[in-house]
Order: sequence, then C-alpha cells, then structure tokens
Amino acid sequence: MLSFWQDYPEIQNKLIAVQELMAERLKINNQEIESALQKMTSRGGKMVRPALFFLFAGLNSDESDPKMQERLLKIAASLEMLHSATLIHDDIIDDSPLRRGMPSVEAQFGKDVAVYTGDFVYTIFFELLIETMVSTPFLTKNAKSMKKILQGELTQMQSAFDATISVHKYLKAISGKTAELLSLSCLEGAYFSGADKSVQHSAGKIGRAIGLAFQVYDDILNFSVGLDEENKPILTDVRLGIFTLPLLIARENEPATIMPFLEHPEKLTREQCLDLAKLVEEAGGIAGALLFANSLTDKALEEIEKLPAGRSRDILSEATQLLLQRKY
Amino acid sequence: MLSFWQDYPEIQNKLIAVQELMAERLKINNQEIESALQKMTSRGGKMVRPALFFLFAGLNSDESDPKMQERLLKIAASLEMLHSATLIHDDIIDDSPLRRGMPSVEAQFGKDVAVYTGDFVYTIFFELLIETMVSTPFLTKNAKSMKKILQGELTQMQSAFDATISVHKYLKAISGKTAELLSLSCLEGAYFSGADKSVQHSAGKIGRAIGLAFQVYDDILNFSVGLDEENKPILTDVRLGIFTLPLLIARENEPATIMPFLEHPEKLTREQCLDLAKLVEEAGGIAGALLFANSLTDKALEEIEKLPAGRSRDILSEATQLLLQRKY
Repeated sequence: MLSFWQDYPEIQNKLIAVQELMAERLKINNQEIESALQKMTSRGGKMVRPALFFLFAGLNSDESDPKMQERLLKIAASLEMLHSATLIHDDIIDDSPLRRGMPSVEAQFGKDVAVYTGDFVYTIFFELLIETMVSTPFLTKNAKSMKKILQGELTQMQSAFDATISVHKYLKAISGKTAELLSLSCLEGAYFSGADKSVQHSAGKIGRAIGLAFQVYDDILNFSVGLDEENKPILTDVRLGIFTLPLLIARENEPATIMPFLEHPEKLTREQCLDLAKLVEEAGGIAGALLFANSLTDKALEEIEKLPAGRSRDILSEATQLLLQRKY
Repeated sequence: MLSFWQDYPEIQNKLIAVQELMAERLKINNQEIESALQKMTSRGGKMVRPALFFLFAGLNSDESDPKMQERLLKIAASLEMLHSATLIHDDIIDDSPLRRGMPSVEAQFGKDVAVYTGDFVYTIFFELLIETMVSTPFLTKNAKSMKKILQGELTQMQSAFDATISVHKYLKAISGKTAELLSLSCLEGAYFSGADKSVQHSAGKIGRAIGLAFQVYDDILNFSVGLDEENKPILTDVRLGIFTLPLLIARENEPATIMPFLEHPEKLTREQCLDLAKLVEEAGGIAGALLFANSLTDKALEEIEKLPAGRSRDILSEATQLLLQRKY
C-alpha cells in the first residue's frame, strides 16, 4: 500500500525507513508475538500518519542535518506505533463482545496474544517518545492524545446499538478515534522541524479536518462496499451496532423508515441490508454525509494554501486530494 | 487490606494518600470503566509496591519538604498504576483462552471494558512518570521494566501446559512477572529520596529477592488453599497449565508419579487434584520450594541489615518478615 506514495519518492523512501525502524524495534523473544507484529508492519497500509508528519516537517526541516533527520524518523515511527497499538486492541473489542466481526490478524493469533502485543507496542511507542521528546511539551501532549483516542473508542463502544445516538456524539467519537492522531501527526511535523507557531497551529487544524473527512468518507464507503458481490459481508458497521453519519442523517430525515432496522441490526439479513443501503441513499444520508466530508476537505485544502510555498506544500495538497478522493 | 500496615501509621497514611491520588486520576467519562476502576482501587490489596517504595524513601527523604513529598506520592502511585494495568490485562488472558479461571472483576465487566481500562491505566501511569521523572534516567528504566514484566507474562503464557518446563524458565517468568516491579519500587524509593549509589544498588537487590520469595510463597500456597473446603476450587494454577516450583521440584524427584497428572491438567477432577497435592508434598516439592523461598527471604533480610539504621530500616525488616511469613 506504500505504492500510494509512488509519485512522491521522497515520502515513500522515508516511509520505508519507518517500516524498517519499526521492524527493528518490534523484536521480542516470543515467536508468536513477533510473527503477529511482522505481519502487521509489513501489511503497513498507506502509513498516513507518518506521511503527513513528514510532509509538514518538509515545509521547514533541514535535510542535510542527519541528527534532525534521525529524530524525525523516530517520531514518525512513534505515530505509526501508537496507531498500530490501538488497532490491535480495537480488534479484540470488535471480535470479543459481538463475535460477528470480519476475521482480523488478531483473530488468527488469539486474544491473549493480541492483548500483550498491543501492550508491547505501547511500550515501544513510549520508548521512542523518551528518546526524542524529553525536553519538549510533547510527552504530555502524547499522553493527552492517547487519552482522547481511548475516550473516542469508549464513546463508540458505549454507544453501540444505541438507535438514538446523536450526530454530536458520533462526531465526538470519530474526533478522538481518527482526527486526534492525524492532528498530532501534522502538529508534530511542524513543531519538530522548527516551524513557527502559526504554521504549527494550522498544522493541527489541517490534520483534524483531514482526519474527520477521512473517517466520514470511510463510513460512507461502508454503505456501498460489497453490495454487488454475492459473498462479501456488507454494512458491517451497522451490523456491529455502529451507526455512522449517513445512517444518522437518513434517520433524521426519515425516522419511520430507518428506525425499524436499528432495533436488532445484528440480525439483519443480506436482503434487509441491501434494502437499508438503498433507503439510506434515498433519504439523503449519503449525499448529506458527502456534503459534510467535502466541506471538511475544502477547509483543509484552503488552510494548506496558506502554508509556506514549496514542494512539500504541493505534495500535501495533492496527497490530501488523493487521500480523500473516494469512489462514489 | 491496608490494615496490613496498621502498626505502621506513617506508611498506612501514605498509602491512603496514594489511593486518593489514584481515585482522582482515574476519572474517565465512561461510567462502566469508572466503576471498574473504583472497584479496583478501593479493593487495593496490601499495596506492597508503594509501601516498599516509601520504606526505602524513608531511609533518606526530607519529610519537611512538601515538594519532595508530593513527587514521592506521585511516583508511588505510578508503581501501583503499572501494577494495576498489568493485572487488568492479565485477567483477560487468564479468562479468555482457558475459560476456567476464577471469576475476576474483569470477568464481570467484560473483556472489552478490560482492554480499554488497562490501556487507560497505562496512560495515567505514563502521565505520572512525565510529571516526576523527565530529568532522570527513570523514564527509560520504567519502559525497560514494562518490557520485562510483559516478557515475563509472555514466557508464562508460552510455557502454559508444557509438562517439560524447566525450573530456569519458571524463574525467568516470575522474575519478570513479580520481581521486576518490586525491585523497581525499592530502587526508585532510594533514588528519588537522594540515597547514595550503594543504597540504591542494595535496594534493587532487596526488592528482587523479596519479589521472588513473595511469588514462590504464593505458588506454594496454591497447593494448600481450599483443600479442606468442599466447594472451593483447588490447584487453580495447575489446572490453568501453570506449573510452578513445588510441582517442578516434585517432578524432578518423582517423574513417574507426577508426569501423568500434567498431560491434561485442565481435566483433573477434585479427587485427582487432592491426590496430586499430596504427591507433590510427599515428593519434597513443598519443602524444596520453601527452602528456596526462605533462603531468598534471609538474603533480603541480611541486605536490609546493611542499610542505614533507623525507623525505616526497622519497619522494612519487620514488614519483610510479615509479608513473607505465610501459614504452612
């Protein structure tokens, strides 16, 4: 998935270096855990968090200073470590109480391995912070972000299967769950490359907007993915009791139509899910959520335009559009 | 259980202050989690880790310096936080793969709450470290201890149901699982009260010896507790596939007698468990393990005698004997 960055070799190369550093740090004297971790780091994904970090750092950082570059590499890895640790523990939650989640890496290795693997990754995250941030306010900021991420997950867990969940509560949950860490990634990129206060401030705002938009687009996607393929699970969020923006907007617009589906979402058949997907679209849920996500994207792009001009800003603008451009 | 310290009001009062600080820090906007945490902190136990910390700090610390006392209080709380976080996650492991464990607080609230509760407590632990240790080598030391504790748990998990597990591996597991944090507690008490290097060194050694002895006595107790009570689960360790020192010594002495019990320990009936307990004793397993634990206790007490004389040293010596004195 690093091929996402193939047109930006300067970013792609840094992300490969992050993967290498992670693989090196995630060595542990337990074969089962180590293979779980290897699988996780090589799977990798787009590595959006370290990528945004490097793009903001690139606005200002001195490429010829190897000490600064090493520090930036470690901080980028810390962001991906924190993300990985939360993912590993999330998968336990998604599988355990509901037992209807799709198969995850964690499901293969068992919950016991997943608990300790997540804890171990938190420890490595903590070590990377200690190595890079001791004289800065960012140790405290990272702890606060961890708390917010956790509270976002908790809000979502607490609200699962609540058919009356408000849009406000949904936004609070995704704000912690996704936007917090993307905001931190951008802010740290600006701060640790020595950008001035106003750029730091913009960085945090841009990261938050990208994070919210990213999650809303993802939630919209969950209402279309797999609909045409007979054997693919569909509307997986709804069936886990997770009611996202398209559904909430549709519910506001057409309560009588939508509410009956939310009583026992875990029991919905494929046919019922197909009906619900159609009704959510007809009730304006998809269009409304898209409008919201698009306005966040525009806000992020506008803020990016105010950043110092140069190659990093150009990539940032292109990558944001690429990242937030989904197929609808 | 703080009544354990009732003869030492200066320690008991400090431990009550630690409980109060923990209750204050463990506030979270989720009722379920908060009640799980309240239950955990009020249950409390003997709070051996902060108690040992204060006893070592007491050898040297300036009681009239409120800033130092506040810092010591926070560090004591960090030790109990780390211990609590590992306990919460351990209970997930003990319940999840085997489903034969005794009911735990976590079992009442569900695994999903337990995962995030543990993570949240790690975050508070991390915050307390940041508030107190930034200019010291102890941020790094704490991260290393976390890793060792985790690896101890992993070693135990990996070795579960292994009938050929060596005594060496058992010691490695309990060294991480129990001794590491007790050693850190004593060492931090000495360091943060400004004790000299040689006292710090002794503190670490004493903590390790107490920790190992503590765990071995606990493991011995598991071969006698509940034997006379019809409805109490017995030999819970063995039935979870956890083979501890008394069993390992008995197995070395009488392999033909003991080995058959270790093939399917999870299937042992109460009658078979009673037989095994008797055989372990007859094969010298209890006596051998006691000899080992007693020698560790003696070593700890000898080292304590070399510490600077005073009230703290006297309590430390008495408390060590009280803590490690079990009924056999």
